[in-house]
Amino acid sequence: MLPHFADLLVQSISKAGAPICVGLDPVLDRLPAALASLEPPQALLAFSQGVIDAITGIAPAIKFQSACYERHGSAGVASLEAAISHARAKGLVVILDAKRGDIGLSSEHYAASAVSAGAHAITVSGYLGPSGISPFLAAGLGVFVLVRTSNPDSDVIQAQPLADGRSIAELMADTVNHLGKAHLGAQGFSSVGAVVGATKAHEAQALRARLPRAFFLIPGYGAQGGTAADVQAMLTKARGGILVTASRSVIYPTAKPNEDWRQAIHAAAVAFSREISQVVQG
Amino acid sequence: MLPHFADLLVQSISKAGAPICVGLDPVLDRLPAALASLEPPQALLAFSQGVIDAITGIAPAIKFQSACYERHGSAGVASLEAAISHARAKGLVVILDAKRGDIGLSSEHYAASAVSAGAHAITVSGYLGPSGISPFLAAGLGVFVLVRTSNPDSDVIQAQPLADGRSIAELMADTVNHLGKAHLGAQGFSSVGAVVGATKAHEAQALRARLPRAFFLIPGYGAQGGTAADVQAMLTKARGGILVTASRSVIYPTAKPNEDWRQAIHAAAVAFSREISQVVQG
Repeated sequence: MLPHFADLLVQSISKAGAPICVGLDPVLDRLPAALASLEPPQALLAFSQGVIDAITGIAPAIKFQSACYERHGSAGVASLEAAISHARAKGLVVILDAKRGDIGLSSEHYAASAVSAGAHAITVSGYLGPSGISPFLAAGLGVFVLVRTSNPDSDVIQAQPLADGRSIAELMADTVNHLGKAHLGAQGFSSVGAVVGATKAHEAQALRARLPRAFFLIPGYGAQGGTAADVQAMLTKARGGILVTASRSVIYPTAKPNEDWRQAIHAAAVAFSREISQVVQG
Repeated sequence: MLPHFADLLVQSISKAGAPICVGLDPVLDRLPAALASLEPPQALLAFSQGVIDAITGIAPAIKFQSACYERHGSAGVASLEAAISHARAKGLVVILDAKRGDIGLSSEHYAASAVSAGAHAITVSGYLGPSGISPFLAAGLGVFVLVRTSNPDSDVIQAQPLADGRSIAELMADTVNHLGKAHLGAQGFSSVGAVVGATKAHEAQALRARLPRAFFLIPGYGAQGGTAADVQAMLTKARGGILVTASRSVIYPTAKPNEDWRQAIHAAAVAFSREISQVVQG
């Protein structure tokens, strides 16, 4: 039996001190030179384990980009499974960023796969409707539904206005809120969260108003242009409910001369944690 | 270099005689008794190979439900890779039903994964916008974008009216049509297709009018309630542009006494082919 996801997340953030999540999106041509002699799936795993060790105690959560591992076929997926297992052993909250979205029965299979791998939560697409999301919740996982993504051309779909005045992103937010009411934890947050990019902060306050009980998984801070004010717009009144992710800025830091790559990642995670702590304190 | 997907599909349908696609959605508790002694990934592979052999020469295309294989972890994904390889060797058009949908760079990884596995095309979600779809086309794959799905509660999102009078499904259709114009083949069809469920035929004519050059991948015929008239509403004026999928009715047929399971699947595929031929002839 998995713990209630939102309660676990609140507890882990409180312990770590900042609502941050390190995104593990490994690509071969950016791995440390020390790993260059390994076969690709082994290099991905060694890098993943190094990142996990470096951020343990600093970040409450880690987000695995499934595509980066799937790129290397079944051997890459085996590395993902082993990396998730290592993250679990280190006590990290594990989010599988797989953006799955299918009808009920296939979603059940995806949910079973994520649970077997050891994920606590998964990112999902809601385009097929609530019945594509519910199976993940029934399996005990938390979900982060794609509501408003950080890529510029997401406007083509997500920003379009409905006849009733809402945007498509707001329709998705209301769908998430409705589903989430049945999955509230003891800390007042739902296990049904939302992906809301930090580059869309002019809409963030409206989305927060529609989703008072949802955790926002927030990509796009920093490198993609999201600012402290953008993130602050997504906080709840109690200054909670957010999980800010950073990937490249943490996992590919510029190392000092003679610094081990894991030390450099640790330092980058510490800096990211401090920065977001200050953002939350406002 | 992959052939132009839509041209390949037109050619394969013409050779096989009917625009059908067998959906391979294997679940352990429905596999033939003869495979019960195998470990799950091996049972999935043996079943997949049997289905492929049974439908070769009858169906032009096969659609692999990725979730069914992913359920069994990296070993299940290895079975999927081997099954796709077998389908390619038999000359089938291979559609990976993975419904991936991410931003550009992650979509590039998913595209590379599908190409490596041997797929000709993949199903994708368009919620993140055109830049999440384009990487699959750049990799030489055909795509089928989720436009109108066959599950009842898809209406919660896809049927909602926009301010300009279109439904969200029609917005997605227009996005698909716009992307597709740059990917037309010699036969007049685009490699950017659409998933349109056969249970939504009251909308099918409107979607066909918006997507004159797109192949429609059509689930929901038969078991889910789609009728011949529903499918006919999706034909182009030249009575083409469709690929009707059936899964359970073909891969889990009721075998006659002493009939081998592969013979029963072959017979079910032949019956499905005849039925859809008649539907197309109207």
